[in-house]
Amino acid sequence: MDGVSHIVVDWGTSSFRLWALARDGRVLAERRSGQGLLTATTEGFEIVLETHLAALGVGEGVPVMMCGMVGARSGWVEAAYVDTPARLDRLAAHAVAVPSTHRPIRILPGLAQRGAAGADVMRGEETQLLSLIRDGFDGIACLPGTHSKWVRVEKGTVSHFATFMTGELFHLLRTTSVLAAAVEAAAVEPDDPAFADGVREGLAMPELLGNQLFRLRAAWLLAGEEPARGLARLSGLLIGGELAGAAKLFGPLAEVALVASGSAVFLYRIALMLAGASTVIVHDADACVRAGLHAAALIAFPQEKVPA
Amino acid sequence: MDGVSHIVVDWGTSSFRLWALARDGRVLAERRSGQGLLTATTEGFEIVLETHLAALGVGEGVPVMMCGMVGARSGWVEAAYVDTPARLDRLAAHAVAVPSTHRPIRILPGLAQRGAAGADVMRGEETQLLSLIRDGFDGIACLPGTHSKWVRVEKGTVSHFATFMTGELFHLLRTTSVLAAAVEAAAVEPDDPAFADGVREGLAMPELLGNQLFRLRAAWLLAGEEPARGLARLSGLLIGGELAGAAKLFGPLAEVALVASGSAVFLYRIALMLAGASTVIVHDADACVRAGLHAAALIAFPQEKVPA
Repeated sequence: MDGVSHIVVDWGTSSFRLWALARDGRVLAERRSGQGLLTATTEGFEIVLETHLAALGVGEGVPVMMCGMVGARSGWVEAAYVDTPARLDRLAAHAVAVPSTHRPIRILPGLAQRGAAGADVMRGEETQLLSLIRDGFDGIACLPGTHSKWVRVEKGTVSHFATFMTGELFHLLRTTSVLAAAVEAAAVEPDDPAFADGVREGLAMPELLGNQLFRLRAAWLLAGEEPARGLARLSGLLIGGELAGAAKLFGPLAEVALVASGSAVFLYRIALMLAGASTVIVHDADACVRAGLHAAALIAFPQEKVPA
Repeated sequence: MDGVSHIVVDWGTSSFRLWALARDGRVLAERRSGQGLLTATTEGFEIVLETHLAALGVGEGVPVMMCGMVGARSGWVEAAYVDTPARLDRLAAHAVAVPSTHRPIRILPGLAQRGAAGADVMRGEETQLLSLIRDGFDGIACLPGTHSKWVRVEKGTVSHFATFMTGELFHLLRTTSVLAAAVEAAAVEPDDPAFADGVREGLAMPELLGNQLFRLRAAWLLAGEEPARGLARLSGLLIGGELAGAAKLFGPLAEVALVASGSAVFLYRIALMLAGASTVIVHDADACVRAGLHAAALIAFPQEKVPA
């Protein structure tokens, strides 16, 4: 493959995403798979990576910049956390080198928060934020997911962040709990009024979460409530509760940068508006992680590589 | 077996408990097993019951009073819910007869709440409450469990109740979530200050639950927090959140009847005191369900049976 300057990879617990980029950041090729950490630990990290690169015809020597759980203790090579307050433009300087005979490979570190603000960690989201600050972003960012992150960025520095287990709770309750039958539907419809109702109730009465959850089952048992509505309400309750917590930690949610992809964009935008946000600026999470990795690659691999 | 007047059975989703009682309620024999609904649906409800009775030498004709999920739609015979407001002393009148050639068998109904108070259901706890009202109980009762129940009893009538999924959330988070390693310990030590800390935080900031949960993992990762302390804190956070919700629905928790067995007695007593309760009267849940079933049996089977 011609014109590839460097490769960037977002490698998480359950997914692998790779882009081949030109020096100016243009996407020349892309690969996606379910070879997250769980799979890669068995198959071998280097084999997974090199197999994808071979499939694209990327030659030896083309460097790779990665982020995500691949840098966890249980990943390929541990990239030690950078503590908050953390300057995002310094992330690349803390990247750890992965031994390889094929090419230079670096993994970006995650961030850790210690002390009075409460222990917390992130891996991958800091790279999305790196993209935001290149456009001068300052303020509160919401990055929904299995473990949603809320982050305060001040002058290019992450000063405070908090993780909410919203996505994982949704998954557990939907698949493994007594609620499963009452919420058995393919996906949350953002337009379903049950979603907005759930958000409002989660925002107003987050202390009732454990009760609101059980009542999804009771409404299905007693009143034949549609599972699709139950699922929408479940999602709304959890996201509403997350927003109530975020407002507690970060103050009124007036202006929020929403870094998301897929259905989370619609759900969180609706929920943020219900929470009183006047401005929600959406940034595509995939584009952000790619741009953040690209920025880090330009710093870490300053010389243009000539593909072998 | 001599002197057996009637048999009482508490038959739940995952457990089976049977007592052979004298006419005055004395326990003559007891059987416990894990043959809950899941098992009994396969083995056959009548076979499970008669096998236990044969093992005790209980003759044909001795009647049986049951409560719990055995009366659910997915149980042996459905005992339709009684709607709130529900007079507890009328439960026996609503018991459903189970066809059997061996003996009279009845299943007590559960309770359903509909309308503005919020859809909710219980099966089994109403029978424990039947025991309480025989001692003239009036007020708020807390019945901890997989699905904790909070109940307002007025003049022998259940006027309002609410279920919280506390026990199930604890189980899911402990066994199946990303927290598992951070809370991997045998049991919660009620004396662990981490439990009380969790209760206080759950009471004060229930909107932060999703964040507090993730921070159990972060504290373990970053600061090497002991999993036993993590488990105690997890339990405290969930119970504290439940109490915050109960106070929202039932008003200040000044006087509470705690109907519980095992470690829940200690944990909820501590938590209730931290929530500001001045009086917590503990009732043993096993003794209550037995006494409630006994009371119902005396009504449903007025003639003393002569064992065959």
